[in-house]
Amino acid sequence: MRYVARNRPFIVRSGAAHWDALKKWNASHLKEVLKAHNVNVAITNEGNADSAVQTSDGRLIFVEPYEREEPFSQVLDKIADQELRGTEPRVRRYAQTQNDNLRGEYTPLFADVPADIPFARIALEQPTGPDAINFWLGNSYSTTVLHKDNYENIYVQVLGRKHFTLLPPVESACVNEQELPAARYGPRGVASRSDAEDVILDEQLRNLDVNMAEGDAKVPCPIWDPDAPTKRTSPFSDLAKPLKVTLEPGDMLYLPAMWYHKVAQSCSEEGICVAVNYWYDMDFSGSFWSLASFARTVGNLASTSS
Amino acid sequence: MRYVARNRPFIVRSGAAHWDALKKWNASHLKEVLKAHNVNVAITNEGNADSAVQTSDGRLIFVEPYEREEPFSQVLDKIADQELRGTEPRVRRYAQTQNDNLRGEYTPLFADVPADIPFARIALEQPTGPDAINFWLGNSYSTTVLHKDNYENIYVQVLGRKHFTLLPPVESACVNEQELPAARYGPRGVASRSDAEDVILDEQLRNLDVNMAEGDAKVPCPIWDPDAPTKRTSPFSDLAKPLKVTLEPGDMLYLPAMWYHKVAQSCSEEGICVAVNYWYDMDFSGSFWSLASFARTVGNLASTSS
Repeated sequence: MRYVARNRPFIVRSGAAHWDALKKWNASHLKEVLKAHNVNVAITNEGNADSAVQTSDGRLIFVEPYEREEPFSQVLDKIADQELRGTEPRVRRYAQTQNDNLRGEYTPLFADVPADIPFARIALEQPTGPDAINFWLGNSYSTTVLHKDNYENIYVQVLGRKHFTLLPPVESACVNEQELPAARYGPRGVASRSDAEDVILDEQLRNLDVNMAEGDAKVPCPIWDPDAPTKRTSPFSDLAKPLKVTLEPGDMLYLPAMWYHKVAQSCSEEGICVAVNYWYDMDFSGSFWSLASFARTVGNLASTSS
Repeated sequence: MRYVARNRPFIVRSGAAHWDALKKWNASHLKEVLKAHNVNVAITNEGNADSAVQTSDGRLIFVEPYEREEPFSQVLDKIADQELRGTEPRVRRYAQTQNDNLRGEYTPLFADVPADIPFARIALEQPTGPDAINFWLGNSYSTTVLHKDNYENIYVQVLGRKHFTLLPPVESACVNEQELPAARYGPRGVASRSDAEDVILDEQLRNLDVNMAEGDAKVPCPIWDPDAPTKRTSPFSDLAKPLKVTLEPGDMLYLPAMWYHKVAQSCSEEGICVAVNYWYDMDFSGSFWSLASFARTVGNLASTSS
């Protein structure tokens, strides 16, 4: 409760070590439980889903991944093979739907994790539990770029490791948030997702097209990367003090609402990285939301006018 | 704890009704207990201690009251006589030292209030108790102008009523904070406080001089008054949403750190207004201090440059 009040992160090392997920989950168990299931998978060529991408004419655009349904066993095998043997390095898969998928497409795994995190339910005053519980399966070829969520987040590592780079909301002026035109990756010649996707081979996925969103849709997106700190800077990026933490299997991170985070992954010996996270509604009623939003707006205006 | 986390005020109606102070204190009891004591009293001509005052040449300056020691019985009688009979309306006394005076010059009264407020000690994580406990004695002729304190405040009304006007820290841009030259009221011809103060009559205090502080001392001071909202405005004053609350005897207000407050008073039938407040150290470690300070700085810069 004190950490929530201060909007400060913490890690409970081995806080989830006793979960069934930590004892049971491995590549063969996951495939056994989910073999009959199709799951949504995000596909990119650079492991850069939901990120700022520079077009050939130098413009920055915000590109969402190509998404399609694939048999879970196949997704896991391809992710692991790429990690362990470097197969198809251009076709990067990341099962990362973030739509409460552990109570949806991954329901058969849900019994292996708690339906709620008691300390979070109490501290965050969310008696009805989390808004979403998400399952993540990827490898080191995919990275989640710097962004923030308007959710309180409990992040639990199960297999492999996650490497978080964190910035508090007061450093929003450092991340150089820009309104970027929205786009989505898609296989060449396939106009919509319903077009004969099953017959697209991985070879065809090696060079995805960027398809601009209809209309004039724009997405606010930090374009500064704490791992390339002298590029795409705002006037204030050099003031950032990124915090780096690594989650080992069984570790539990409280990532407070509106903290910027970039997430890279290392794999288990089986070539996969698996995590679960719980999103709880954040509190919009006190001083935090208004003050943090003000700091973000001012930072953006100051960056634009400099 | 939840209210502290949100930096939001609340009132516990009759929360202090069981205190000895609420049962025992009245004019004759206070005089009986303190009759032998000299106490520090703040004296002004307009009831405007620690406030922005316009000089004859139109400049705004920050004026502290003339302060001197007087016998407590005399202070109380003069405050009550002024309230009930309008005597010496120009000479306004307010015992308001704010230097932990209830454990200092008012020690004989200290046993009538708790040494600590348990819920505040726990919620504010101050196991050693408050930094200061203050006794206040005044009448409706004195008003405390809009200001903020970097303290968490538990304010308890004992006799009469206090009328608070409150603004949250996010509205700092509305209060038109200015750096004003510092000054202090003083009786004419008396160069320093040690000069024969005892022989100064109330008649001589009717027209205090304003003595500028030595050097170039300046004090940051909101110059906007929520009760004269179209005067001395910042470009943002019209956006303020002042909150008005009245404390009755026995009521306890949690006034969170950095909230702007203006305080007027009404008297008991005996013509006095008495209160006690507890100042607890605020938490500088989380997001609140940095974000609220940023909002204040930006508001001041935006007001200056507009």
